[in-house]
Amino acid sequence: MPKQNRLLTDLNAATMTQTDASYGMIEDAAIALEGGQIVWIGSDASIPAQYQSFEKTSLDGKLVTPGLIDCHTHIVHGGDRAVEFEMRLNGASYEEVARAGGGIVSTVTATRNASEAELTDEALRRVDVLISEGVTTLEIKSGYGLDIETELRMLRVARSIANHRPVQVVTSFLGAHATPAEYKDRDDVYIDEVCIPALRAAHAEGLVDAVDGFCEGIAFQPDQIARVFEVAKELGLPVKLHAEQLSNLGGAKLAARYGALSADHIEYLDEDGVKALSDAGTVAVILPGAFYTLRETQAPPIDLLRKHGVPMALATDINPGSSPLNSLLLTLNMGCTLFRMTPEEALRGVTVQAARALGLTDQGTLAAGQKADLAVWDVKHPAELAYRIGFNPLHTRIFGDLT
Amino acid sequence: MPKQNRLLTDLNAATMTQTDASYGMIEDAAIALEGGQIVWIGSDASIPAQYQSFEKTSLDGKLVTPGLIDCHTHIVHGGDRAVEFEMRLNGASYEEVARAGGGIVSTVTATRNASEAELTDEALRRVDVLISEGVTTLEIKSGYGLDIETELRMLRVARSIANHRPVQVVTSFLGAHATPAEYKDRDDVYIDEVCIPALRAAHAEGLVDAVDGFCEGIAFQPDQIARVFEVAKELGLPVKLHAEQLSNLGGAKLAARYGALSADHIEYLDEDGVKALSDAGTVAVILPGAFYTLRETQAPPIDLLRKHGVPMALATDINPGSSPLNSLLLTLNMGCTLFRMTPEEALRGVTVQAARALGLTDQGTLAAGQKADLAVWDVKHPAELAYRIGFNPLHTRIFGDLT
Ligand SMILES: [Zn+2]
Ligand SMILES: [Zn+2]
Repeated sequence: MPKQNRLLTDLNAATMTQTDASYGMIEDAAIALEGGQIVWIGSDASIPAQYQSFEKTSLDGKLVTPGLIDCHTHIVHGGDRAVEFEMRLNGASYEEVARAGGGIVSTVTATRNASEAELTDEALRRVDVLISEGVTTLEIKSGYGLDIETELRMLRVARSIANHRPVQVVTSFLGAHATPAEYKDRDDVYIDEVCIPALRAAHAEGLVDAVDGFCEGIAFQPDQIARVFEVAKELGLPVKLHAEQLSNLGGAKLAARYGALSADHIEYLDEDGVKALSDAGTVAVILPGAFYTLRETQAPPIDLLRKHGVPMALATDINPGSSPLNSLLLTLNMGCTLFRMTPEEALRGVTVQAARALGLTDQGTLAAGQKADLAVWDVKHPAELAYRIGFNPLHTRIFGDLT
Repeated sequence: MPKQNRLLTDLNAATMTQTDASYGMIEDAAIALEGGQIVWIGSDASIPAQYQSFEKTSLDGKLVTPGLIDCHTHIVHGGDRAVEFEMRLNGASYEEVARAGGGIVSTVTATRNASEAELTDEALRRVDVLISEGVTTLEIKSGYGLDIETELRMLRVARSIANHRPVQVVTSFLGAHATPAEYKDRDDVYIDEVCIPALRAAHAEGLVDAVDGFCEGIAFQPDQIARVFEVAKELGLPVKLHAEQLSNLGGAKLAARYGALSADHIEYLDEDGVKALSDAGTVAVILPGAFYTLRETQAPPIDLLRKHGVPMALATDINPGSSPLNSLLLTLNMGCTLFRMTPEEALRGVTVQAARALGLTDQGTLAAGQKADLAVWDVKHPAELAYRIGFNPLHTRIFGDLT
């Protein structure tokens, strides 16, 4: 495919770089793209001569942002939990739901029973919605297989998404998500017999970009997570962790000790934990979809994260149980409405900070040398992206050389 | 345009009629359409001979519901409030926002300054989103003009929407929405000099299907609303009311005394008020978008409404201030998640009960004699419509003779 040279003109650029302007805004800007990269960005009035011959597109004053990044998803999974959702609202207890085969078990069963093609087709329906919102990179976790074969299948499907659609995929191995029924009350055996061998096998196949876990009373204890992280370290893989979502087990501090890319959820994180993230340079990934769906009341410590300069990312956490939220734009609104993040923090959370949460340095801002992943919006002000609820003002998405 | 004869086969029909089956479901159903109406619905296995010659479309087991109805919107308005949204999140007080020209005043100013064409173009962007979700009828209110000329312009724009798009529009005159700056502290004079003359003029032009008001401490008192309702009665127009959203002023009881079609919001409604609605056959219109956006904590009395058999509708309340919510599907989820409505109640709320809230008897269910307004969904179970967040599974919308 030929590398395109393009010059976008007459636009406002929310560069998301740190400048004196909010959103790193450059008004009346132009952007030159070459070889799938941004090669120049600056004032429309001072375009260097060498870019004047590029194919020009005037954007009529539209807003350009970096392509959006959804840095925490479980978008590959079998089945849905709509019937369970209805049972609960009809008054069924958790026990009745469980007896009817509900809960995470139902997703594990559906995922194990689904072929690679079925998992791919279902995931693509959801990925397409994200792409329609300007998403150019998304993270995808395993963790609904909980056996070696299905964990690998989930990661193969995740990797294959980028062959089916113009989007970048970053994978996380999440074998330590839950203990499957066949290992009930034998969490440690599960870690030894399934989780760690699956991680080694997936890594050998090149399927793993990072290693994740779920540290919680209903999932795994810090010492069990630490054993998985030790293997990650041995394999040279970065780690991240679902931590402090429903209680404070010290998961974020553990993650920080391993130099984690991110600690995710963190509703119950205390100031000590926040400091640990700050010292380690770990990103806090804020997930309002699960907070909303589970009707939680304890919000993550946004003010403490600000105070200690912890970067905040925002993501959908799309999963069939606690966050069937398929919209990153709606996530921006939830971050602002439910957690009082500012629209600028929210937009940084799905661009520059989301990139950081994935260890990516070639995207997330509009700057020379960054990937030519852009979103063009039919809005006057970037705050509109967080303000509107259920309205998608995307005009165009540019993904590298492929528009 | 020729009237189409169509036979839809191989579908599951959530008829929303009252039968023993939840959702009034008929599995393996067929529907015959003729002259813009449903002429027959029943089992796929027993299609009467006279419909066998109709043009057949197999729907491969998809779900068919009545076209959705959004029975409470302020979708025609000028401007947006994104900057105000951002100011608030950056810590500005209500006074600072007001000094910067924010609040409803900014929407009134923008609406007054917008031409009919501009108001139409902006509204159509939002209407198109609703149509993409299977909406076939929506209600549109005036109430951001607050002068005679602009109130009429808003209603003309509302009426014109149906000329631009295949959708039915029902209008409500909402002159008693707020007192404009030029009548500050002279609410009664505003009612006499602007609201009532505007209502008479709009009615004379055939622009009014119902008369609405906002009964609240920050808006109008019951006696002021009553004066507007008296004029409605004289003109033979049905009434409805924004009532008990932030406090209990007895608005719903007042509305019930006038045999109102609906009482809307009603977070603070007490059991007496619920009984009054029940006795009058008034529909409760539940608006979770404003509750969510304003971060209210008092939910409407869903259990009392159930207990007294008050029909519950659900709507977006789309408006630029308290509910910039442009998705009726997301409203279903919010009704369930925030207010614990069941998915069936939610779906009834945007079909049969929404029709009732608008005084429409020719739509809202799938039954012979009803309009051929249908939504075809790529889902297995109707609960999926409320379960998913930010995902639109619409396959096709059928609007009368126009698909
Ligand atoms: Zn997660
Ligand atoms: Zn309203």
